[in-house]
Amino acid sequence: MISERLAKQIEFIKEIDKVKYILRKTKLINSDRNENDAEHSWHLALMAIVLAGHSNEPVDVLKVIKMLLIHDLVEIDAGDTFIYDTQKNHSNTEEERLAANRIFGLLPSDQAEEFIELWEEFEAGKTQEAKFARSMDRLEPLLQNYSNNGGTWREYEISYNTVYEKKKIVREGSETLWSFVENLLNESVEKGFFNS
Amino acid sequence: MISERLAKQIEFIKEIDKVKYILRKTKLINSDRNENDAEHSWHLALMAIVLAGHSNEPVDVLKVIKMLLIHDLVEIDAGDTFIYDTQKNHSNTEEERLAANRIFGLLPSDQAEEFIELWEEFEAGKTQEAKFARSMDRLEPLLQNYSNNGGTWREYEISYNTVYEKKKIVREGSETLWSFVENLLNESVEKGFFNS
Repeated sequence: MISERLAKQIEFIKEIDKVKYILRKTKLINSDRNENDAEHSWHLALMAIVLAGHSNEPVDVLKVIKMLLIHDLVEIDAGDTFIYDTQKNHSNTEEERLAANRIFGLLPSDQAEEFIELWEEFEAGKTQEAKFARSMDRLEPLLQNYSNNGGTWREYEISYNTVYEKKKIVREGSETLWSFVENLLNESVEKGFFNS
Repeated sequence: MISERLAKQIEFIKEIDKVKYILRKTKLINSDRNENDAEHSWHLALMAIVLAGHSNEPVDVLKVIKMLLIHDLVEIDAGDTFIYDTQKNHSNTEEERLAANRIFGLLPSDQAEEFIELWEEFEAGKTQEAKFARSMDRLEPLLQNYSNNGGTWREYEISYNTVYEKKKIVREGSETLWSFVENLLNESVEKGFFNS
């Protein structure tokens, strides 16, 4: 006899398999294959473990990882929004909020509440854990685009200034990583990855 | 100026992107698309967070997650070994050990040591963290094969007894999850997923 609690957890575990089909605009390193949200989330979580020592303030690494592992689950219903999409703002659309309630709502209520709070904290970007998690989310596509001769920056003709503004969020997570990002963006200019 | 420490960490982060290309034998839920190691590792880590309360003994969840996020990185060099492969034993082959030294060795030495130890602890399966992590690794493909009309069990004609023996490891992590597994295997017999 399976408990109601376990049955709900298994339903959630099966449902989130769908995030493996959500494709991002960015491609894998040295590749023309799009990355999906599950791969992306795995990479960010492991990056957070490796890079946590560079955070501006000490962070609860487990909390950062939880945020990163779940941050894109809402896209199962709401779809991926391209960060440089000028029509649609990424943060906390009504669609994403409904998705969070439905998907996390599959879990037992205590876990549903915890995950919704973690997702909201990540989206709000106010705590150091959220800031550091969000800096991981900006850093990975930078490494991908840099390794892919400009990747989505060139493909969608994104200007240096637009990218610089979007990447600034890294600074809130880590000054050290922000120096690295500025460096890589300067090199990207030299390599001609931006035409404006 | 980027520190040597950060440079090594970034090299590691770029190298592990390759795990997104390592295909497993099992397919995604209700799908004929093979799962890759990055997606698999993401799923197990999140399963561990959701299911940790069912562990036979309390576990350090952060440690379990770290193990799960890195457990398949050696396959970048050594490739995926099918769990029901009778020719090749999965555990700690010389090839995998060399891979661990090379891949984790890209990191600063303190982190390289920590990751190699975590990987060895996972493979040895003696601590409760390793036992619980390994039970996640057995549970996910069970959910996939069950949802795919027997999946790899039917495709490779694996017998009920062979599967049962391989899944027993779940019991060491969680008696509760083991009951669930036994249940699902019984249902799989009824559905004709095993021909022996």
